Amino acid sequence: MDINGLLTSTGINIGLCVGLFSLYSVLRKQPSNVNVYFGRRLASRRLRHVDILERFVPSPTWVKKAWETTQDDILTIGGLDAVAFSRMLVFSIRMFSVATVICFVLVLPVNYHGRERLYKNIPLESLEAFTIENVKQGSRWLWAHCLALYIITITACTLLYFEYRHLTDLRLIHIIGPAPNPSQFAILVRGIPWSQESTYCDTVKKFFSYYYESTYLSHQMVYNSGVVQKLKDNAKHMCKVLSRSMTRCGHGFSHCCFCGGFKNSIDFAMRYNDIETDSRKESGTAFVYFKTRYAAYVAAQNLQTSHPMLWVTDLAPEPNDVYWSNLCIPYRQIWLRRISTFGAAVTFMIVFIIPVTFAQGLTQLDKLEKMFPFLTRVLTQKFMNQLVTGYLPSVILVLFLLAVPPVMMLLSTMEGHISRSIRKKSACLKVLFFTIWNVFFVNVFAGSVISQLSVFASVSELPAQLAKAVPVQATYFTTYVLSSGWASLACEIMQVCPLFYNLFRRYILRSKDDSEEGTLTFPYHTEVPRVLLFGFLGFTCSILAPLILPFLLFYFSLAYLVYRNQILNVYVTKYDGGGKLWPIAHNSVIFSLIVSQIIALGVFGLKRSTVSSGFIIPLLIGTILFHIYCNQRFHPAFKNLATQVLIDMDRRDQHLGKMEEIYEQVHSFYCQFPTRSASSSERSAGSYRGMTSDHVSPAPETLDADNDGIDINIQRQRDMAWPLGDLV
Amino acid sequence: MDINGLLTSTGINIGLCVGLFSLYSVLRKQPSNVNVYFGRRLASRRLRHVDILERFVPSPTWVKKAWETTQDDILTIGGLDAVAFSRMLVFSIRMFSVATVICFVLVLPVNYHGRERLYKNIPLESLEAFTIENVKQGSRWLWAHCLALYIITITACTLLYFEYRHLTDLRLIHIIGPAPNPSQFAILVRGIPWSQESTYCDTVKKFFSYYYESTYLSHQMVYNSGVVQKLKDNAKHMCKVLSRSMTRCGHGFSHCCFCGGFKNSIDFAMRYNDIETDSRKESGTAFVYFKTRYAAYVAAQNLQTSHPMLWVTDLAPEPNDVYWSNLCIPYRQIWLRRISTFGAAVTFMIVFIIPVTFAQGLTQLDKLEKMFPFLTRVLTQKFMNQLVTGYLPSVILVLFLLAVPPVMMLLSTMEGHISRSIRKKSACLKVLFFTIWNVFFVNVFAGSVISQLSVFASVSELPAQLAKAVPVQATYFTTYVLSSGWASLACEIMQVCPLFYNLFRRYILRSKDDSEEGTLTFPYHTEVPRVLLFGFLGFTCSILAPLILPFLLFYFSLAYLVYRNQILNVYVTKYDGGGKLWPIAHNSVIFSLIVSQIIALGVFGLKRSTVSSGFIIPLLIGTILFHIYCNQRFHPAFKNLATQVLIDMDRRDQHLGKMEEIYEQVHSFYCQFPTRSASSSERSAGSYRGMTSDHVSPAPETLDADNDGIDINIQRQRDMAWPLGDLV
Repeated sequence: MDINGLLTSTGINIGLCVGLFSLYSVLRKQPSNVNVYFGRRLASRRLRHVDILERFVPSPTWVKKAWETTQDDILTIGGLDAVAFSRMLVFSIRMFSVATVICFVLVLPVNYHGRERLYKNIPLESLEAFTIENVKQGSRWLWAHCLALYIITITACTLLYFEYRHLTDLRLIHIIGPAPNPSQFAILVRGIPWSQESTYCDTVKKFFSYYYESTYLSHQMVYNSGVVQKLKDNAKHMCKVLSRSMTRCGHGFSHCCFCGGFKNSIDFAMRYNDIETDSRKESGTAFVYFKTRYAAYVAAQNLQTSHPMLWVTDLAPEPNDVYWSNLCIPYRQIWLRRISTFGAAVTFMIVFIIPVTFAQGLTQLDKLEKMFPFLTRVLTQKFMNQLVTGYLPSVILVLFLLAVPPVMMLLSTMEGHISRSIRKKSACLKVLFFTIWNVFFVNVFAGSVISQLSVFASVSELPAQLAKAVPVQATYFTTYVLSSGWASLACEIMQVCPLFYNLFRRYILRSKDDSEEGTLTFPYHTEVPRVLLFGFLGFTCSILAPLILPFLLFYFSLAYLVYRNQILNVYVTKYDGGGKLWPIAHNSVIFSLIVSQIIALGVFGLKRSTVSSGFIIPLLIGTILFHIYCNQRFHPAFKNLATQVLIDMDRRDQHLGKMEEIYEQVHSFYCQFPTRSASSSERSAGSYRGMTSDHVSPAPETLDADNDGIDINIQRQRDMAWPLGDLV
Repeated sequence: MDINGLLTSTGINIGLCVGLFSLYSVLRKQPSNVNVYFGRRLASRRLRHVDILERFVPSPTWVKKAWETTQDDILTIGGLDAVAFSRMLVFSIRMFSVATVICFVLVLPVNYHGRERLYKNIPLESLEAFTIENVKQGSRWLWAHCLALYIITITACTLLYFEYRHLTDLRLIHIIGPAPNPSQFAILVRGIPWSQESTYCDTVKKFFSYYYESTYLSHQMVYNSGVVQKLKDNAKHMCKVLSRSMTRCGHGFSHCCFCGGFKNSIDFAMRYNDIETDSRKESGTAFVYFKTRYAAYVAAQNLQTSHPMLWVTDLAPEPNDVYWSNLCIPYRQIWLRRISTFGAAVTFMIVFIIPVTFAQGLTQLDKLEKMFPFLTRVLTQKFMNQLVTGYLPSVILVLFLLAVPPVMMLLSTMEGHISRSIRKKSACLKVLFFTIWNVFFVNVFAGSVISQLSVFASVSELPAQLAKAVPVQATYFTTYVLSSGWASLACEIMQVCPLFYNLFRRYILRSKDDSEEGTLTFPYHTEVPRVLLFGFLGFTCSILAPLILPFLLFYFSLAYLVYRNQILNVYVTKYDGGGKLWPIAHNSVIFSLIVSQIIALGVFGLKRSTVSSGFIIPLLIGTILFHIYCNQRFHPAFKNLATQVLIDMDRRDQHLGKMEEIYEQVHSFYCQFPTRSASSSERSAGSYRGMTSDHVSPAPETLDADNDGIDINIQRQRDMAWPLGDLV
């Protein structure tokens, strides 16, 4: 592929992007699409009216809005996870700005003038002329690459350090929070031992009121998911009967079984009757509430009995974060589920080599022509040739990759995680491993060896193999950034699937009922791995083939705007993972750095530059030490809560006399059987912090200014029973 | 090597063993050696007189005593670690009894009749005729090996399961214990932040009395090791001055700084003056005491502040277990020390290949003759030949291996562990990795490839490589068991070094002062890896070369008697690691099983028996699942303490009104400056549980019956200031 081919690709992509973004700026102003592009806004407030004329003129207002939004707004609207994700993009932009400058100043000239040869016109120059391939063996100029790698590594580590510190601080602020979060008073107990004499409920009460005498508040059982439906039906039926005689019943049925300290009411008594008859259907899982955060945390952290598979305690997730159907899985199954899904994920990763190899084969046209002789005539056309080699493989790969996140999400669901955020984090990790393996490693080795696995069997030759293969594949990665990266952003902002579904529903099904549309949460499990993969490609290719860097930098800048827009307008934040995505990003960057150093080691070895090779070793050791230090210094704050913080919070609330109020809230906080009443939907829509409706922090004032939206007359009582639904 | 060669080796070794054991049975009855062979007894009681005639007749009484001792006695005398070690031997004996029977019935005949050939007289038959090498490719009889491996794996897993459960129960009993253990009320705090305004002592008091208001009892600072000596000198000097006017002063100086709840006394006031002047010399480390075990445990487990490198808490080790000089290491150094020692250990392992390769070279005489032509004449003699090939390599290897445990112990010391038991466990792990790597893997590949490391670089070919190499090396391993194993037991019981040192001291230096001799603790870091290595050799060679099994079985049986004798008579138990050695043994056995299965996979592959190969896969998966299950089920009990257990213990003591008494004890429990007074030596000698002298559980009655020892008139006030000394 030559510069012209690259420019063709770039042209196509820029055209596509401009077209799609303009289309987006028009589509978003159509009232019929408001639930596609303003899901979050819709959930929280009514939108302003817009002129008919204005509606059909493409406008870049959304870019301005996305740019102007502050981090505090993102934090309020999207939670800490959104901030962590946005910091990943900021980090990438800063990092690759530095890398672009360094590599264009230091590395690119050295690569281009690397060996004596016949210089062509630059547009006709092959892309290989800009890679390290072009530098002759034993060149004295390889120190430039070594120096560039040093600067890149040091910049990355410095930025990472400050980002990690910043995120740690934000997390602390998030935990302390202005309003008390009742979920901090709750723990989840699994593996409650079964006894003949008493129900699970009594067992729990007995255990905790004995061993946590002074701090135990109350508890709430979780019911087997099969029973849930039955109980719900019972409740509904009784509700109908009772609603004729009583007014407050509709609200009451949302409560569950409290065995300690629960102020009684009619609905509780009725619910209790239900449970009495179904006491065998209680699962061995319960929420237990404590009088202080510290007591709850201690109970969650410690081993309860000397049998570690019984009385397993964890901090309770926020109510909206609870994955109810997994709570009933017997705890003794969990380890088997983890292992099975691990096995399944690995198998899936390996089997996926088949489509990747096929896509990769397209970049080598001669092979393709041999396999399909009838294509020869088509492929000799220059444009078709450029299209097929430069664009088609990426498209095929992208299409196949679309299937990956749902599969990984399914696997993570089967693992039995108790909360949606952990499930999403787990899926995120799986997708990340998957993409880095399949996009990078398999692609790199698909060209050079027949069996990809056999390369990884030979550990000591890995650097040399990578050094041979990566520069060859750099062109492919550049087009991958162009096609997959830029197009994915356009697709993301266009919301292709929801848009078509909306059109289909509106014009084919002629449905006028808006209550059906789902409210989506941010798909971190697809977007985080994508961003990190591009970072990985950037680091590994930076000194080998610096031409990839400007494309990446453009990608990250665009991503920064697009994702901010999506967080502001589209995705509803139902729960907060507490920024736990950041350690994944940190580890991924460190891994990228180490891989790029290993590749550099191999390249310098191949180019017979022992001095440069030697200089990489301390860099490698330094990077590993930095990683271990960061893990020691920052990671505990993402795993554990500090005694000091918890006790200070408890004392603050005790001092303010808020405790009684919190205890009241705690009792109605977790609800396995959500009602379809207004109060519940109100609670779930606005407040990811899981406050009851009177604690919802209002959307920030800054947002009032950017109402470019649409007034919709459909004043909907939107029913979002998502704690039961499976929307992620 | 043929059967005759093996028998020669066996003969030499049996002769050596019988000779040495007889010598031992005589030597142990000599009064001059009593401090070599009865170190523990000496430390705890006086011994009975023995006849002059009886003294010089070899007698097997010690075998009888060792055999008759019950596990409860071992527990009382040697602590839980001794029991865990003894269970390793019991497990090995049971395991290899089964393996021997199975392999001799199933595998050995198949191996011997594996291919059609000219059968020689059995004594002249090469040992290779009994290995799997002798089975022809594609033999239908390979199912026998597969079946044997199944039986061995299932037996091993079953035994492991019950042993782990048994050890878990014992550990629980050990923790609960009949007498309260004040160290359960203490935690160790490192990384106390330095402030300009106040001393470390005040900072600790402020922090814990604020955040652990209701449970904090008092604390005690740790002083920089340089200061210790100075303070000790001060104390001694003042003691002399004061002893003229006061009588109780000698005792008082053993106390240290207590800032809370400490009943004052004159000596405390004086000590406090000392500390006031040296307040800058306080290290950032302290012991903090709590009112309940549960409170102490919770404080030890939790992160104290959001800066994870400050206020680092751990459960306090028992007083005798504390490694004082490591307590003053700033906590922020620890991670760097860990990494450096890890690097050093790995380097040491790799460099050690040189002597191993040399030793291995001796088994291939033709190479040796080429290198040293003058040896040709000597080596053509048959006996010399057998001696050199069958015996010398092992001896050389053993001599080199002697250097390993001290080096690893040094590395573990530098790691900065706070307790001697953890240091020993860490050294034990290092030695284990070292021996398995150097004795097994390097030996296996030394013969077959030039560079050992390159084999491990090729992961996928490992099974086949192992399958080729292990049967070839089986003969070597058999002689290794004979020479290293049996001889090590003889050396162990003879206590060669202490014996010679004793003779040297007594007859050359003419020293009559018995107070100098050290009291040794059990060298788990050399003995556990040795036993586990032999287990590893047994598992990996069992179906390939079953002739090794009877030698191993004999080794384990002898080891059972010898080590029991040593626990009963020689080694003093100063502290108890709480059976934490068992998980190491468990993991090692699982690793052995997996390696043996991988080798079997390779062998069946080489022999073209796809069915047998296929049958190994489920076995491998099953073993891994079993391991994960055991880790889930039992390992937490070795890492954590259960809330239930701790609270039950606290309530028991509160109920019995013992708490006040325990608080009193706690204050004088940890002492950085041991006095040389009688009370202190009394305490340290008899009671590894760390009780003060009036709580020492008397030596069990059963031991009174086996006094075959010697009455020594030296009624010694033995001075064992070991908390300062570096005896392990």
